[in-house]
Amino acid sequence: MSGRLAVIGLGPGDARYLTREAEDALASADAVYGYSAYLDRVPSRPGQARHGSDNREEPARAAAALRHAAEGANVAVVSGGDPGVFAMAAAVCEQIEAGPPGWRALDVQIVPGITAMLAVAARVGAPLGHDFCAISLSDNLKPWDLIERRLAAAAAAGFVIALYNPASRARPGQIGKALTLLRRHLPAATAIIFGRAVSRPDEQLTITTLEDAGRVPADMATLIIVGSRDTRVIYREDEAPLVYTPRAVAGAMA
Amino acid sequence: MSGRLAVIGLGPGDARYLTREAEDALASADAVYGYSAYLDRVPSRPGQARHGSDNREEPARAAAALRHAAEGANVAVVSGGDPGVFAMAAAVCEQIEAGPPGWRALDVQIVPGITAMLAVAARVGAPLGHDFCAISLSDNLKPWDLIERRLAAAAAAGFVIALYNPASRARPGQIGKALTLLRRHLPAATAIIFGRAVSRPDEQLTITTLEDAGRVPADMATLIIVGSRDTRVIYREDEAPLVYTPRAVAGAMA
Repeated sequence: MSGRLAVIGLGPGDARYLTREAEDALASADAVYGYSAYLDRVPSRPGQARHGSDNREEPARAAAALRHAAEGANVAVVSGGDPGVFAMAAAVCEQIEAGPPGWRALDVQIVPGITAMLAVAARVGAPLGHDFCAISLSDNLKPWDLIERRLAAAAAAGFVIALYNPASRARPGQIGKALTLLRRHLPAATAIIFGRAVSRPDEQLTITTLEDAGRVPADMATLIIVGSRDTRVIYREDEAPLVYTPRAVAGAMA
Repeated sequence: MSGRLAVIGLGPGDARYLTREAEDALASADAVYGYSAYLDRVPSRPGQARHGSDNREEPARAAAALRHAAEGANVAVVSGGDPGVFAMAAAVCEQIEAGPPGWRALDVQIVPGITAMLAVAARVGAPLGHDFCAISLSDNLKPWDLIERRLAAAAAAGFVIALYNPASRARPGQIGKALTLLRRHLPAATAIIFGRAVSRPDEQLTITTLEDAGRVPADMATLIIVGSRDTRVIYREDEAPLVYTPRAVAGAMA
């Protein structure tokens, strides 16, 4: 009897952003593992075990889920957003590579979800309409000077930049350092979007500029999109502004 | 009477990847506009008008949909993947900025979807598990030398790279040029994934290396993920390999 592990993306929060594939994978699981705040979004089902854990325990959570699946169970691990973007899918792969041979025989399915940068972008227009990158600002798993090199390279090359994990209680100052660095590469008027808890009751969206971005609070539930030099804001009388990055850049043929 | 325009992401193809929000937005539309191949994925509904057009006509399609919405209709524009990633949301914003004042008064809603890089990544593991970027290889709207600069900057800075629009009938050779450039920055053994028509009946997935990538065909339905130096492949006896990029890089504290 061989087990099965599904790593499921829950999207930004509201159940409207779940795909049918995610709904079906959740419904068929014998057990669900996840960070407790994500597990709380999943309706409980009779006979389905639930294993919540702390945010910082990804490797242990992945290993527990794999052990359970290797016993023959149909196990789900839930992730906010998309499980492949700074989330549980890589943690599961790390454990499979390091773990017992039996874990390699498991049927592993990654169920994609709407990651935070897509949800925030959709709320304000199309800021990711041109080339873009995604960088986690957390230096728990990489050195800070590498983060700085990537920010500088991305800004200089004209990428729009989505910043994941911009700040936490243990790292309150890194977003400030990142903004200071970005100001050396981008104009003060560059558009920046702060999206917090998008699609949830406490959603907060702020459209500002690189110059003023230091005044906007950020935490682990915040996703920040830093525009490129080409990103534009359309102000509207009775509707919220639209922020977008044009598909074309100067010098193109069309 | 003020109109409404929803720009809806259909995901990679199969209806299982639609969100409920996208399903609801499609169901409530008076008219649906889109590239004919995407429109074909949407079930027709009694009383709902359908306006298919060619792939290259984004600005005209966006303008037609906005004109229709400005007449008071509830109009949907459909996009493959996510509408904000190299797709219709930016084209709609461009038309709103350039168009008549009435278009700024419209209720515009962007409905996010599973973009191709998330769908391809999920099929093979977690190649986007660390910092990554998305680059369109089409030089219809930007100069080729800018694309080359971005590829070089991204590879040198250690980003995993998702390549959209790698080739078309009019641009068959650009993926080859891009791979040649990437070989100057990355080891020959770097993992590369070619994902074509993911979730559709003609889905093709190829896991290869930078050295051998030139042998794999690519077209407009193909999304390519170029790993970083850290991207790993887990070979498995009875299951497909897993490709992932570890969350941690050398030099990190944890």
